[in-house]
Amino acid sequence: MKQRAHSITDGILFTDQYQLTMAQLYYRMGMHERNVQFDYFYRDNPVYNGHMAGYCVSAGMAWLLDWMEEVRFGNQEIGLLAGQQGRTGASVFQPDFLEWLRSEGTFESLTMHAVAEGRVVHPNVPLAVVQGPLAMAQILETSLLNHLNYQSLVATKASRIRESAQGGQVLEFGLRRGPERGVNAGARGALIGGADFSSNVGLSHDVGLFPKGTHAHSMVQMFMALGGGELEAFQAYADVYPDDCLLLVDTINTLESGVPNAIRVFESLRKKGHEPVGIRLDSGDLAYLSIMSARLLDKAGFPQTSIVLSNNLDELVIWQIVTQVREEAPHYGVDPEALIKRLVYGVGTRLIASWGHPALDGVYKLVAVQEQEGWRPAIKLSETPEKIPNPGHKSIWRLYDSRGKATADWLGLDDEDPRQMDSIDLIHPEDPGRWRRLDRSDLSRAERLLGTVWREGERLDGPPSLAELRRTRQEDVERLDPGVRRLINPHVYHVSLSRRLSEQKSGLIRKAAV
Amino acid sequence: MKQRAHSITDGILFTDQYQLTMAQLYYRMGMHERNVQFDYFYRDNPVYNGHMAGYCVSAGMAWLLDWMEEVRFGNQEIGLLAGQQGRTGASVFQPDFLEWLRSEGTFESLTMHAVAEGRVVHPNVPLAVVQGPLAMAQILETSLLNHLNYQSLVATKASRIRESAQGGQVLEFGLRRGPERGVNAGARGALIGGADFSSNVGLSHDVGLFPKGTHAHSMVQMFMALGGGELEAFQAYADVYPDDCLLLVDTINTLESGVPNAIRVFESLRKKGHEPVGIRLDSGDLAYLSIMSARLLDKAGFPQTSIVLSNNLDELVIWQIVTQVREEAPHYGVDPEALIKRLVYGVGTRLIASWGHPALDGVYKLVAVQEQEGWRPAIKLSETPEKIPNPGHKSIWRLYDSRGKATADWLGLDDEDPRQMDSIDLIHPEDPGRWRRLDRSDLSRAERLLGTVWREGERLDGPPSLAELRRTRQEDVERLDPGVRRLINPHVYHVSLSRRLSEQKSGLIRKAAV
Repeated sequence: MKQRAHSITDGILFTDQYQLTMAQLYYRMGMHERNVQFDYFYRDNPVYNGHMAGYCVSAGMAWLLDWMEEVRFGNQEIGLLAGQQGRTGASVFQPDFLEWLRSEGTFESLTMHAVAEGRVVHPNVPLAVVQGPLAMAQILETSLLNHLNYQSLVATKASRIRESAQGGQVLEFGLRRGPERGVNAGARGALIGGADFSSNVGLSHDVGLFPKGTHAHSMVQMFMALGGGELEAFQAYADVYPDDCLLLVDTINTLESGVPNAIRVFESLRKKGHEPVGIRLDSGDLAYLSIMSARLLDKAGFPQTSIVLSNNLDELVIWQIVTQVREEAPHYGVDPEALIKRLVYGVGTRLIASWGHPALDGVYKLVAVQEQEGWRPAIKLSETPEKIPNPGHKSIWRLYDSRGKATADWLGLDDEDPRQMDSIDLIHPEDPGRWRRLDRSDLSRAERLLGTVWREGERLDGPPSLAELRRTRQEDVERLDPGVRRLINPHVYHVSLSRRLSEQKSGLIRKAAV
Repeated sequence: MKQRAHSITDGILFTDQYQLTMAQLYYRMGMHERNVQFDYFYRDNPVYNGHMAGYCVSAGMAWLLDWMEEVRFGNQEIGLLAGQQGRTGASVFQPDFLEWLRSEGTFESLTMHAVAEGRVVHPNVPLAVVQGPLAMAQILETSLLNHLNYQSLVATKASRIRESAQGGQVLEFGLRRGPERGVNAGARGALIGGADFSSNVGLSHDVGLFPKGTHAHSMVQMFMALGGGELEAFQAYADVYPDDCLLLVDTINTLESGVPNAIRVFESLRKKGHEPVGIRLDSGDLAYLSIMSARLLDKAGFPQTSIVLSNNLDELVIWQIVTQVREEAPHYGVDPEALIKRLVYGVGTRLIASWGHPALDGVYKLVAVQEQEGWRPAIKLSETPEKIPNPGHKSIWRLYDSRGKATADWLGLDDEDPRQMDSIDLIHPEDPGRWRRLDRSDLSRAERLLGTVWREGERLDGPPSLAELRRTRQEDVERLDPGVRRLINPHVYHVSLSRRLSEQKSGLIRKAAV
């Protein structure tokens, strides 16, 4: 007996209740069609077990737009809302509002500008700007945050893991321990952010890749339980997959049994004209075992085979493994750089769950209301100055220094264009007394960060291919100062305001606090 | 333009590639219909930022069974698999195997026994036992792990949060920062494990609850941007929802503006015959602000109104807030116990992401192969003894002491029944030299933990209602020793083997290691 209606849990009711109660209030007050602007941004880079990241990687927009195109307030949704009762048993939502939702409750009235997927991004910079009638812009909030926060979180972790692997291939293995259906979004984020392939079959096909994977311990156990052994299991694998033979060697004992058996099978494969792919290590001291396995494989004439490592890997563990291989391999007669090149990292739990910091703190804030004469900025106060959003309809820029490296993201008023300025003031967002001035000649380029991805129901995002998204990410990472890319204690990338925006913000704060 | 085919990413290809390559190998070797047993269990309780939990709460089975009922190798799936190429460009999967998948590749051949959802569970105890033909039992692995690991993880966190709230209501607010579609499963886990309600509209309706939520800062900002203020916003809310009026009071200044404005609106509501619900605090020192807000509300004649707290709450933060309220409230003339009773906790990010330990380490291991004469145990070695699964077809029991408290989970051979024994030996799973003996008279009860939930395609799990699952959880938590329930440094609950199972395991290890 089927219990769950995916159409309900994944449709337009994939939202928080307060979006709908607010929408009804706006409708009741005649405010629901006022044009407004909400900004999506995150406040802090992830802090993995105390280590703050230097940047994030943006991902998730294509799937958010899929959702916006698909969902509707249909009969089922309207029926459920009509049945909602408040404390006294009266209906929460009235028929006229529900009728409005049914006929007008789509995202076709909205326009969205956003930073492209795959781009390196920074705190407090609007990554998506939603403009349009208040009620539907408000209702979009929850799903927008849900789609962009998690995929960007995993893309960011993947980018760090890729850095730590120093050229080694990265495989995403997170399906089994990741967050239920969220693993598909997570795997996509990982593939944009730095993983080369995924074990997830459906998701890999969805993004145009072939999934990766060979066999588990259970296969070896099965042969053992039937009276055979590891060698018979490996032989069977080689018979069925002679050109894709990668063997998991730690079911019994890696160096005493697994690697020697793998080598016997590799030798017989080669006699038949097939080259083996390699081995996988899933337990024990992975640095030591990879050195010793490489020594056995080299000696047997298989110096090109891959050595896949898995078992609770993350960027710091991989970094330590690479460091240890570089130091220790020469003591065992193994060329460390050759070994590092053949290492492949299967990263599961700690990538998909963004271990150490499992949620991005993205928010969606009302920043402006459209008037006859233009956009009027809206402000929200907070007891902590960092939590006051930068108000108003803004232009968002990335500034590159003479080396071509990104030096700051710069937020100005809508009519400000740093390319037209002789000098550009970069004001600290919370402390207007801290600022610096760049001469136009100090900069090689000023780049607008946002592009329109959705205009009145029409989708304008491409859609980009995975290859393009990865190129975008790689180019952006390379344009960072190496200090910002550091995995631990990175240099802080500057996000600054223009003098006019800073003054507008200070004025609004003063006025609201009176 | 629609980019994603949910039918592919959420269907039977929601699995790891190696399940399919192994299945083809089994098919090729004629082993695919051998009856086997896999056990699902987790190895360690979550360790939240260094603090290991005392138990977990099981959840997710109903949704796993939904998935098992729905998915099929249809034309689309078979077509994608047929197109997969190996390194040399040859097909990975052959037509005869794909034809077998199309006609026989369902879960109807399997039987599953499992611990009921909502039950308190412990490490290394099989929580689900899958029996049936090897190929499909293997293919089930990934999705089973995915569905059970994450929902149990969140249910466990929710149970801790409920304990810390000491009777205060708990609301699940995680949709916006949780893991994309996984938030639906997470919210269900939270509602089973300890949350009273969720803000997630679709999921709440799916489980038969009304969602919770009132308004955000943006509503107050909107009125301010249009020339009004917080009072006008609150008044509008009270007009539209006179019997469900709960106001967010920290958009400008909680004690100077928000609470006084809320009180003015509450007074006018009362004059019209409506009782207000309360206020929500979302920033600042929540313990101090809740005391000061309670003082203002009490003085104004609203001592019953709820005070909802939100902003990065988890079980330790809530515990600290309750402790501080108990200590500080009397200094301000506020009755601490009355205040603690009116506190409500909106818990978002740190619940849905299981902050501090964002993945449960559940595994699915081959433990037995069926022979003519019965089940033959299968073993997997490891360099760490804790990673060697308990082999064979087993019976799983929970033993209760004379107080009716659960004292140990006990794993025996299939024919062992502690109710038939005069004394029961409890052997340490990894160290047979450590054991204790219980007299039958020391026990008030021995309970079989597993029940059949799926037999040859037929679903036998009920399905239980949310109310039943919550009752199950509550009764099980109350049957724990208080030391095991402790949030930090709990007493370790014993999971033990029977003497015969322990001896069988030792014998298999000796034999395999030769």
